[in-house]
Amino acid sequence: MSLDSVVSRPRRFDVGLGGPAPRLVDTRSRKGYDCLGRMVSLEVATHCRTGLVDITTQVQSAVAQSQVKHGMCFVYVPHTTAAVTVNEAFDPAVAEDITATLSKLVPAHAGYTHTEGNSDAHIKATLVGSCQAVPVEGGKLFLGRWQGIFLCEFDGPRQRRCHVQVINQSGG
Amino acid sequence: MSLDSVVSRPRRFDVGLGGPAPRLVDTRSRKGYDCLGRMVSLEVATHCRTGLVDITTQVQSAVAQSQVKHGMCFVYVPHTTAAVTVNEAFDPAVAEDITATLSKLVPAHAGYTHTEGNSDAHIKATLVGSCQAVPVEGGKLFLGRWQGIFLCEFDGPRQRRCHVQVINQSGG
Amino acid sequence: MSLDSVVSRPRRFDVGLGGPAPRLVDTRSRKGYDCLGRMVSLEVATHCRTGLVDITTQVQSAVAQSQVKHGMCFVYVPHTTAAVTVNEAFDPAVAEDITATLSKLVPAHAGYTHTEGNSDAHIKATLVGSCQAVPVEGGKLFLGRWQGIFLCEFDGPRQRRCHVQVINQSGG
Repeated sequence: MSLDSVVSRPRRFDVGLGGPAPRLVDTRSRKGYDCLGRMVSLEVATHCRTGLVDITTQVQSAVAQSQVKHGMCFVYVPHTTAAVTVNEAFDPAVAEDITATLSKLVPAHAGYTHTEGNSDAHIKATLVGSCQAVPVEGGKLFLGRWQGIFLCEFDGPRQRRCHVQVINQSGG
Repeated sequence: MSLDSVVSRPRRFDVGLGGPAPRLVDTRSRKGYDCLGRMVSLEVATHCRTGLVDITTQVQSAVAQSQVKHGMCFVYVPHTTAAVTVNEAFDPAVAEDITATLSKLVPAHAGYTHTEGNSDAHIKATLVGSCQAVPVEGGKLFLGRWQGIFLCEFDGPRQRRCHVQVINQSGG
Repeated sequence: MSLDSVVSRPRRFDVGLGGPAPRLVDTRSRKGYDCLGRMVSLEVATHCRTGLVDITTQVQSAVAQSQVKHGMCFVYVPHTTAAVTVNEAFDPAVAEDITATLSKLVPAHAGYTHTEGNSDAHIKATLVGSCQAVPVEGGKLFLGRWQGIFLCEFDGPRQRRCHVQVINQSGG
C-alpha cells in the first residue's frame, strides 16, 4: 500500500524547529505532513547512515493538535530500516552509545542473505521496534523527566516519515 | 488465566489464505478463532523451530471485521516463546536474516538456568516484543510500502494464537 | 517535564501485596501513586542493579479500577534505564536468563561515551522497550497462561514508577 494513496485530507501542520543535528525538516514552509482522521505524519530528514533524531517537540505538537487530553500517543515509522524509541534526551552521548552498541551487536556485513546490503538495518529495526507508545495527560506527552522520543535511523541518510496517532481514553 | 476460560462469543472468522510456507491455518474450515468484544484471535501453525510467518492478510481481515476506520491495531501473542514484529514482507531473505541473527545473538545453548531447554526463545521474545501496534486509516492497516506483520516463532513448530485488538480513535 | 508538575488528582490506590523478592511497595500504607484521568501510577522498589519484578497483580488492580471491560492496557516506565516486558511468570529462572543474557549482550563497561557509568542500562531499555501493551477482555488482562508483566530494572536499586493507562475499545 502506498502512503500517498490513502492521503485524504492534507492540512498544514505547525511543527517547532528541530533539535540538534541531524535536524528535523521544518514543515511549516513545505508540504511536509498529511492528516488522516486525526493522525499526523511528520517528515524527518536524517543525515547519517545510523543515528537517533530527537522528535519530541514535533510529536508534542501533534498531540496538541489532536486535542486529546487523556490517552495514548503512538509514534510509528512506516519504514523497515528505521525504528522509534524513548530514551534519555539530555546527554547526546546516550544516543551515541545506543547507536554504536547496536552496530556492534548487528554488524553491517555478516554474510547476510538479503542482497541489498542493509540487512543490519532491518534487524536493528525489529530489535528496537517500529512503534513507540507514550501516555498523554493534560493534553501533553507524559514523559519522564529525562525522556525524549527518537527516530532511529539505521540506513540513512534518508527522508523519513513518522505517523503520530493519538487515542482518546474514553468510556469506562 | 486460561485463554479458553474467557471465550464468551465464538464466531466464524473469514481469513484469507496464508502466505508462503510456513503457512497460516485457514480457519474458515475449523473452529479457529474467538471473538471477545471486538477482539479476534487468529490461529497460526508454525512449521520450524524458529522463523517468521507473514500474517498481514489475516490481521487486515480482522481490522475490516472490526469496522474501525481510524485508530490503532494491536497484534498480541499470548505466548512466552513467540513475538510479533513489523518488517519487510517483499524479500523473504530479510526474515531469514532476522531469524539467523537473533540465533547468533542468543544461542540455543549457553548455560541457561531455566531447565526446559528453550531459554533462548524466551529471551528473543522479550527482545522483539509480544505486541505490535500499527495505525489504521480508512479501515485499513496503514503500513509502509514494504512492511508486513510477522509472527516470530522461536520455539516451534507449534500451534500459536495472535489476538488482534482494534481501538477506535474517538472524542478529542 | 517533571512528573509531579502534572499530578492533578491524587487518590488512594489499593494494590495487592507484591510478588517474590524484589518486592513491590504496598502503596496502601503510603502516598504511593497518582491518578490522572484514568491513569494510575504504581511505585515499584527494586533491590538489585538488574532484575525483573513481576507487577502483574498491581497492573490487574489498575485495570479493575479503570472499569474498562474491553480494550488495551499500556504499562509505561517514565525512566530511561528501566523497561517493561511480558514473559513467563511461572519459573523465575526465565527472568534470570533474560537478565543474564542482556548483560552478556550489553556489558556494563565497554568504552561508552556517556560518563554516568550506566550506558548499558540505557541500551537495554531501548532493546526491551519502555511500554508494554496487553489486551483487556471482561475487565481483566488477557494474558496467556504462562505470561506475567515485568518491570525490568537495569540500573537499580531504585524507587521506580509504572504508569498504567487503560484505553476503552469504543465505537466501530
